[in-house]
Amino acid sequence: MEIEKLKEKAIFPEKRDVIIPWIWTEEALYILDQRLLPSKEKYVKCEKPGQVKNAIKNMLVRGAPAIGIVASIGFYLGIKKALKKENLTKNQLKSLANRVYSVLSSARPTAVNLFWALNRMQRKLETLLKACNNFLSSYTFLINNGLKEEALNIWKEDIEANLKMAKLGAEILPSGNVLTHCNTGALATGGFGTALGVIRRAYEQGKIKTVWVDETRPFLQGSRLTAWELSKLRIPYKIIVDSCAGFLIQKKEVQAVIVGADRIAKNGDTINKIGTYSLAVICHENNIPFFVCAPSSTFDLSIENGEQVPIEKRDEKEVLFIGNKRIAPDSASALNISFDITPSYLISAFITEKGIIKKPFEENIPRVLKNGS
Amino acid sequence: MEIEKLKEKAIFPEKRDVIIPWIWTEEALYILDQRLLPSKEKYVKCEKPGQVKNAIKNMLVRGAPAIGIVASIGFYLGIKKALKKENLTKNQLKSLANRVYSVLSSARPTAVNLFWALNRMQRKLETLLKACNNFLSSYTFLINNGLKEEALNIWKEDIEANLKMAKLGAEILPSGNVLTHCNTGALATGGFGTALGVIRRAYEQGKIKTVWVDETRPFLQGSRLTAWELSKLRIPYKIIVDSCAGFLIQKKEVQAVIVGADRIAKNGDTINKIGTYSLAVICHENNIPFFVCAPSSTFDLSIENGEQVPIEKRDEKEVLFIGNKRIAPDSASALNISFDITPSYLISAFITEKGIIKKPFEENIPRVLKNGS
Repeated sequence: MEIEKLKEKAIFPEKRDVIIPWIWTEEALYILDQRLLPSKEKYVKCEKPGQVKNAIKNMLVRGAPAIGIVASIGFYLGIKKALKKENLTKNQLKSLANRVYSVLSSARPTAVNLFWALNRMQRKLETLLKACNNFLSSYTFLINNGLKEEALNIWKEDIEANLKMAKLGAEILPSGNVLTHCNTGALATGGFGTALGVIRRAYEQGKIKTVWVDETRPFLQGSRLTAWELSKLRIPYKIIVDSCAGFLIQKKEVQAVIVGADRIAKNGDTINKIGTYSLAVICHENNIPFFVCAPSSTFDLSIENGEQVPIEKRDEKEVLFIGNKRIAPDSASALNISFDITPSYLISAFITEKGIIKKPFEENIPRVLKNGS
Repeated sequence: MEIEKLKEKAIFPEKRDVIIPWIWTEEALYILDQRLLPSKEKYVKCEKPGQVKNAIKNMLVRGAPAIGIVASIGFYLGIKKALKKENLTKNQLKSLANRVYSVLSSARPTAVNLFWALNRMQRKLETLLKACNNFLSSYTFLINNGLKEEALNIWKEDIEANLKMAKLGAEILPSGNVLTHCNTGALATGGFGTALGVIRRAYEQGKIKTVWVDETRPFLQGSRLTAWELSKLRIPYKIIVDSCAGFLIQKKEVQAVIVGADRIAKNGDTINKIGTYSLAVICHENNIPFFVCAPSSTFDLSIENGEQVPIEKRDEKEVLFIGNKRIAPDSASALNISFDITPSYLISAFITEKGIIKKPFEENIPRVLKNGS
């Protein structure tokens, strides 16, 4: 099978997980089209930054950490292609790198990991260029390998962060049933998961009875992706419609809620998949712990609070259609907001690879991110 | 067209609305199959109580007031058929009426209007039988007409109650945008609507800018039915996924939330479509009024609080499939809870045909239901 052959050639930081959201070879990045899961596993070949951008924009790949990694590989592929040009100068490459950066960073506005990863690639390129003469033909190998290594590092570090968060998070997660929203597993990250990684580890430790999976309309990341991952991992779960979470929390059928994040402000306000805010309010009302699990790259200390984050509005068709079937009247219109803002007072703690961050967040977020807990 | 001919022969209490959820003729009840809306308008013929029961159970018709009316017509059709039997005695009819009652009342467990309407039909039958000799052959016309009149009264009174609630509710609804959940319009009632009737009237009075329509998973009563009604009524609306309501309430894009109810306990605890509780919590958190609009037949003063109401669990397929398309992995299972319980402290006021009921509910519910406000 074609895919199996590609997997043989894959550039991958470590032993493979059961779930591989993309295959990166020397020639291209093959992205698993998550829109087709769970019914179909199809990989889409991307060779240019514009193709990678479209894959992110159209949600073939999603999840804040995953789009950061994929964008950094897209950046590498773009520069690699440019380096094939004869007589390329530093300035030419720099201006091309800026274009590649613009293309990729315009894919989606909310998750900060995208910008964080692209900034790292840009900085790496600048550092590499310092070691080069103006004409780059002799430095192709140096630049290529340097950028490839940086993209690999971003990926590797994400997996390492996932594993650390899983360990720390599993310790503080109460025993019983846990509820999660959207997909924060291998498909949303470098290969293990943030919130779902914690659940995975806690399950291995015998702490989890059942995982309640919010279906997560409109894209159904829960019933399509999280359910798919939990099935592969043989972790017991049940899917619920998003508005059923309140009932289960009220009835004490949920001992904790754990979600990921797309961006976290300096004060702890958390931007995450639409519906997160409602869950947090209901947990607060019912005294159930509400955890946010995200790598440090998700924190954006340059913004004071959640109000300053651009919230993505997507095509109304995602709400009005399911697959090819229109569910609403022909004249109907919809508002399709992808994210919401959970004020920090509703959050019990953050689980990061640097440590657990408890209240007061304004004090503890900068401290833990800098020094660890 | 066949349906147009049926409409000519329809038994209907008053001038018809733009939306007719069923057609009742002398021979049968033709129920609009709401599962097929908005793409198809198909009426299903029901001649026997068992057929009416299945139409309710399988949600061809839904909405607490609507299923009460439809069940009373089903009761009438069942008795009418029995009366065609020769030498029928009172006791035979009574035991048959009990069977008809059992069949129809088993259709769905949560909405009290179903039991309330069937009890009225039973009591009416008992009263009529007092005027009869033991052999009923000479009393066929009397009983038929008496029961037909009672079913018609239940229907008529529901429309009258809707119109009164619309008037009272429109007065207290704040100007601006309103958000509603599920479908509480003509399709869910005798022909006008409870919460959606209030919105309709308030819109005519220029108080409503936009109606936010929760899509209401899994059955999509919002995006399929409420959107369909609002389109026909030319009231501006936008569909949102259920978990987007919190964001809009938090952002003050919603000035009030108004919903219907399936059963209301003596203390005001309200059982309604899954997701209602979450909306109420979020309104409470954001100081936005949360109104419940329901006719007095929805109150069940025999129960002290919401915990005593049986909550319907439906087939997991409603969550795992959309139309014929499975959205979750083959091995996935789901929990499909149809209703939730909103504690009365989260409710700003009840809008009933007897008057607006404000806090303290324990005192005001029995008073207003008895004497009006």
